[in-house]
Amino acid sequence: MKRIGMLTSGGDCQALNAAMRGVAKCIFHSGEDVEMYGFLEGYKGLIYGNFRMLTPADFSGVLTKGGTFLGSSRTPFKQIREPDENGLDKVEAMKQNYYKLRLDCLVILGGNGTHKTANLLRTEGLNVVTLPKTIDNDLWGTDMTFGFQSAVNIATDAIDCIHTTAASHGRVFIVEVMGHKVGYLTLNAGIAGGADIILIPEIPYDIKKVIDKIEERNKNGSKFTILAVAEGAISKADAKLSKKEYKEKMKNYKYPSVSYEIAAKIQEKTGYDVRVTVPGHTQRGGSPCPYDRVFASRLGSEAGKLILKGEYGFMVGYKNREIVKVPLEEVAGKLKMVSPDASIVKEAKLLGISFGD
Amino acid sequence: MKRIGMLTSGGDCQALNAAMRGVAKCIFHSGEDVEMYGFLEGYKGLIYGNFRMLTPADFSGVLTKGGTFLGSSRTPFKQIREPDENGLDKVEAMKQNYYKLRLDCLVILGGNGTHKTANLLRTEGLNVVTLPKTIDNDLWGTDMTFGFQSAVNIATDAIDCIHTTAASHGRVFIVEVMGHKVGYLTLNAGIAGGADIILIPEIPYDIKKVIDKIEERNKNGSKFTILAVAEGAISKADAKLSKKEYKEKMKNYKYPSVSYEIAAKIQEKTGYDVRVTVPGHTQRGGSPCPYDRVFASRLGSEAGKLILKGEYGFMVGYKNREIVKVPLEEVAGKLKMVSPDASIVKEAKLLGISFGD
Amino acid sequence: MKRIGMLTSGGDCQALNAAMRGVAKCIFHSGEDVEMYGFLEGYKGLIYGNFRMLTPADFSGVLTKGGTFLGSSRTPFKQIREPDENGLDKVEAMKQNYYKLRLDCLVILGGNGTHKTANLLRTEGLNVVTLPKTIDNDLWGTDMTFGFQSAVNIATDAIDCIHTTAASHGRVFIVEVMGHKVGYLTLNAGIAGGADIILIPEIPYDIKKVIDKIEERNKNGSKFTILAVAEGAISKADAKLSKKEYKEKMKNYKYPSVSYEIAAKIQEKTGYDVRVTVPGHTQRGGSPCPYDRVFASRLGSEAGKLILKGEYGFMVGYKNREIVKVPLEEVAGKLKMVSPDASIVKEAKLLGISFGD
Amino acid sequence: MKRIGMLTSGGDCQALNAAMRGVAKCIFHSGEDVEMYGFLEGYKGLIYGNFRMLTPADFSGVLTKGGTFLGSSRTPFKQIREPDENGLDKVEAMKQNYYKLRLDCLVILGGNGTHKTANLLRTEGLNVVTLPKTIDNDLWGTDMTFGFQSAVNIATDAIDCIHTTAASHGRVFIVEVMGHKVGYLTLNAGIAGGADIILIPEIPYDIKKVIDKIEERNKNGSKFTILAVAEGAISKADAKLSKKEYKEKMKNYKYPSVSYEIAAKIQEKTGYDVRVTVPGHTQRGGSPCPYDRVFASRLGSEAGKLILKGEYGFMVGYKNREIVKVPLEEVAGKLKMVSPDASIVKEAKLLGISFGD
Repeated sequence: MKRIGMLTSGGDCQALNAAMRGVAKCIFHSGEDVEMYGFLEGYKGLIYGNFRMLTPADFSGVLTKGGTFLGSSRTPFKQIREPDENGLDKVEAMKQNYYKLRLDCLVILGGNGTHKTANLLRTEGLNVVTLPKTIDNDLWGTDMTFGFQSAVNIATDAIDCIHTTAASHGRVFIVEVMGHKVGYLTLNAGIAGGADIILIPEIPYDIKKVIDKIEERNKNGSKFTILAVAEGAISKADAKLSKKEYKEKMKNYKYPSVSYEIAAKIQEKTGYDVRVTVPGHTQRGGSPCPYDRVFASRLGSEAGKLILKGEYGFMVGYKNREIVKVPLEEVAGKLKMVSPDASIVKEAKLLGISFGD
Repeated sequence: MKRIGMLTSGGDCQALNAAMRGVAKCIFHSGEDVEMYGFLEGYKGLIYGNFRMLTPADFSGVLTKGGTFLGSSRTPFKQIREPDENGLDKVEAMKQNYYKLRLDCLVILGGNGTHKTANLLRTEGLNVVTLPKTIDNDLWGTDMTFGFQSAVNIATDAIDCIHTTAASHGRVFIVEVMGHKVGYLTLNAGIAGGADIILIPEIPYDIKKVIDKIEERNKNGSKFTILAVAEGAISKADAKLSKKEYKEKMKNYKYPSVSYEIAAKIQEKTGYDVRVTVPGHTQRGGSPCPYDRVFASRLGSEAGKLILKGEYGFMVGYKNREIVKVPLEEVAGKLKMVSPDASIVKEAKLLGISFGD
Repeated sequence: MKRIGMLTSGGDCQALNAAMRGVAKCIFHSGEDVEMYGFLEGYKGLIYGNFRMLTPADFSGVLTKGGTFLGSSRTPFKQIREPDENGLDKVEAMKQNYYKLRLDCLVILGGNGTHKTANLLRTEGLNVVTLPKTIDNDLWGTDMTFGFQSAVNIATDAIDCIHTTAASHGRVFIVEVMGHKVGYLTLNAGIAGGADIILIPEIPYDIKKVIDKIEERNKNGSKFTILAVAEGAISKADAKLSKKEYKEKMKNYKYPSVSYEIAAKIQEKTGYDVRVTVPGHTQRGGSPCPYDRVFASRLGSEAGKLILKGEYGFMVGYKNREIVKVPLEEVAGKLKMVSPDASIVKEAKLLGISFGD
Repeated sequence: MKRIGMLTSGGDCQALNAAMRGVAKCIFHSGEDVEMYGFLEGYKGLIYGNFRMLTPADFSGVLTKGGTFLGSSRTPFKQIREPDENGLDKVEAMKQNYYKLRLDCLVILGGNGTHKTANLLRTEGLNVVTLPKTIDNDLWGTDMTFGFQSAVNIATDAIDCIHTTAASHGRVFIVEVMGHKVGYLTLNAGIAGGADIILIPEIPYDIKKVIDKIEERNKNGSKFTILAVAEGAISKADAKLSKKEYKEKMKNYKYPSVSYEIAAKIQEKTGYDVRVTVPGHTQRGGSPCPYDRVFASRLGSEAGKLILKGEYGFMVGYKNREIVKVPLEEVAGKLKMVSPDASIVKEAKLLGISFGD
């Protein structure tokens, strides 16, 4: 008999349901006697004991559905360690609910923040298995996260749509792509969408180089230029600032986001009409793409296998085309970033794409 | 022998190429001896004599392509009547290029602004046939414009994507939809996307009613609410302002767009987390949907037929499911808007959708 | 207090759920006291008393879902009038279940066959309101049916996919499109997909004319030709046969479907490599397109309004861009077909598309 | 100065243009003096000297286009070695055209057959660089081929569409997926589409086991079952036949394809209504998905780099997430197949998917 708790935490993304379905199908199919509980709205549900029992029917028809049927919420790591407004010790509360339900383990789906808390629970003695969810693909210990490829598709669609208008009107267009502090999403969507300039956080840009590229294209007869800009893109000058200086600068920041700053600078120096498009939250929504459905199902089934074997304390990740188990302590608190020397970056440069560096 | 000039003017949209292909296929297929010229970047090409000859090969493979292969530009009506920076009389220049090429007629594809200029050229003695292009569906004299249904699809996709995140996180989400001063696009995408509240320019909203609806949904257990807000949505209070007062107000407007103002007010009064997504220019780009391809092809072929018969001075439009010719003087300068009493509005209200009125 | 039964009958299609949601939202939102019952698997559920109560929750999240959550089945008209294998009088059984549940009316969603039975029930004294469901768009009394536009999209996608291969390999490709005995679906998908030849049941083809068109294209340098062929396409020779003669012929028919016969004849006479693709049932599945979602929601809400007013005996249809009620006796037993003189056919011919006539 | 010839051979697929664009962008961008020639319709163009010069403009706008702008054709390996109907030695002819144009190398895009011929040309002394194109992903020496992921998407779409109909009607549905003699495409589309049974050539099926699974689902209340069947699926009995015996059997084969045989057997033994859908050639057409665009662009750019360095005789492949060069002699004549012990197969089984084994 296994008693399993499950929760999804952090920003939602595509294939969360597919991954949970993978875990559940594997465990229900194994013939093992099992009770499964879903905690609602991420760690909140675990803290305050909001849960419901899950049966095979809950996982029927969810493979293709975006979002998470358990609901999610963001709870920064610090906050988890602080008592709530009624003085409740959250970590203690989570442990109590875990023990009250006599759980054998928790299945936790989430990104970087989620993994810090999951590792904390592990150090507190709870059995935990996690799954790498994020459109940013910035989780340490795995080559890939689910949600990423679906988000690449949506961001690429946006660039494709902008392409026809840019070409018709001869304008400069910026499409701002999600990804927090890492550039995987922008890099892939940018190459897939045929962007001429790609700006990512890991390769700070020089606005002069960006403008040079636009001017060069114009000289060569290309009347339009498309930039894929990561929401976390940063200029060389800003990258040199200390954290404090940067915070100070951002206090009086007059742009809705970095793309608007870049647009303003290009417009100012070239006189070109520059437009910004921000697909925003659409990038984390909608039905997961087939790649993510397969990937999340595979990860989920392997997580189920670990649970059946009683192997806890791991994130189920992906390395060199195999599903692997990665010790949680290796994952938590680290960020996977695009290396400026990665072959995909070099290949993009071979294609003539400028990174503004 | 027919000598035909063609141009696309104003913001680009889906199916411009499909419509031009329709005209060209019809005329080339007729066996009539023909010379066809494409003016580049809208009226600019006609003013400055930038054109190239078009052959059947130019129209091959363009049915599914977004944008316009002739390029486009916006030239407000007033500007057309004013001399350029070198003192050139633009209207006179257009006439001269028309006569120099000994054109039998001009085929002009565009929206409201474009039609004003097209009608001006008609009154100046040029032969003109026009085609109704706009994602806004706001052209007088036709039930439908091409681009509209494709834009509905993209805006609906955006709402669909947001839906899964809204449901997972229990947030209020606003999706801002294009459409200038009319609400067709928002209304249709809103119904298709299952929006709970739809705000369009033709039905000024009362922010209290909007908030009431959100609170009512929360009481009934729906943790999220989705608003489809037209970029031209206006509050009842603002709708009562004179043009001058409104302009004055907008001078100090601190929001990037009306959706952000609405978001701020909801957040302020309810404390709910409100997010805004603006798909923006993506709504006018990308491959035309099958509906638009069929529709634009049909309009184009009928325009070709008119030209072959030498019937000029018309927009080719759509009324009661038939392609019709509409005298240009009836079209120019008028705006088609959503009637607050339209059956589609009433039906949306029957479904429980609030318009904030 | 209203007691309403609902069922979906015949082949499923997109937007069935959206239409039912429209009815339900309208009625639940009206504040009227209501009990709603869903009969499972079409008329079968009504005959054998298989039903379940429906609450607002049943209609949540179904707007974008294909298929029908009530299930469906085909029961030919004749069969309905015949006793079942246990001697049960089906019509009588349906009446008894209707009266047992003290229903005020039945909401029936279906196509041609379904409407015959719905009308029968009306003549037997039951209150009936129907909604026009079919990808074929062949229902009398309405300009449009839901499912149609979604099916056009899928069939067009198939042609688009085939297009790139046809162009790369210089082959003749046939895409066989659904539609039973009518050609709307093929006609629209054919125009949207840029087909060179469109064969529909309403315009019998001459295989020589079809081959002539292919040869003409080859002479003009087009190395490939795409045919959109309705599953009900018929040759001029076959169209002249009596029903009996045709049946006799089809007994020994050696082809899987008409497209394969046409392919064989083209290949035989020209030596060209001809490939057939049959998207088949995919055309009736998947998420409804935004057009269908809006359309089905509107029809549903108007059906709800009729029920609230107690107006029965109607199909809710669409005429000249308005939702209208059409007496059931006018609808049942009639087929709406493409007129060979319809303007859309003429326009397709203007574009150079051959109908093989 | 580099003189480069390029050709695409075998069945077309998505991202061929993207891959050629990658090669061309890399080389044109390098500043190297270059002349590029495109041979039309695969090896045919090289044999008969049909080619045209390629400039950067030829590669503009092709990133998102399906098919191959050079055209393609299939020429089985044996045929290449045999003289043509005029007695022309094809291999000699290819060499002569290569030398006549004083080419430095040939860039050849294709699948298994293509690679045999490419390797032959290499042994004949020509410089060759190849790129792995096939929706089947069956090329030795690379973890992935371009076209594969796009085809997975289309096949999955088909299963998704069928899903709603299967669920509504409670039927058994078979979707026949491409892939020749290997099962990657079926396996991935099957998992992504939530198929209950997946039959691939590498794991011969026992029809009894297939039927058992269907019956088991029925017992558990699932009224429908979906099978993803590879076009090359084979029964255990057939797998034991010698090549000769199998050929003999297929001579009198009365089914259009294996799926129809399986359908007939299920129907016969269970009485269930079984429907077959064959998306066919649509799986290789249409716009490449973002994954394939990125992948093909990367491969292309690395091929360009090899050429610039004068490293010939390689296929540019993908191993453990890095682009690598693989000696052509290692690639030619070998087939990469799904191992029945592959982890993805085991994971699919953990999910409860039956392989009929």
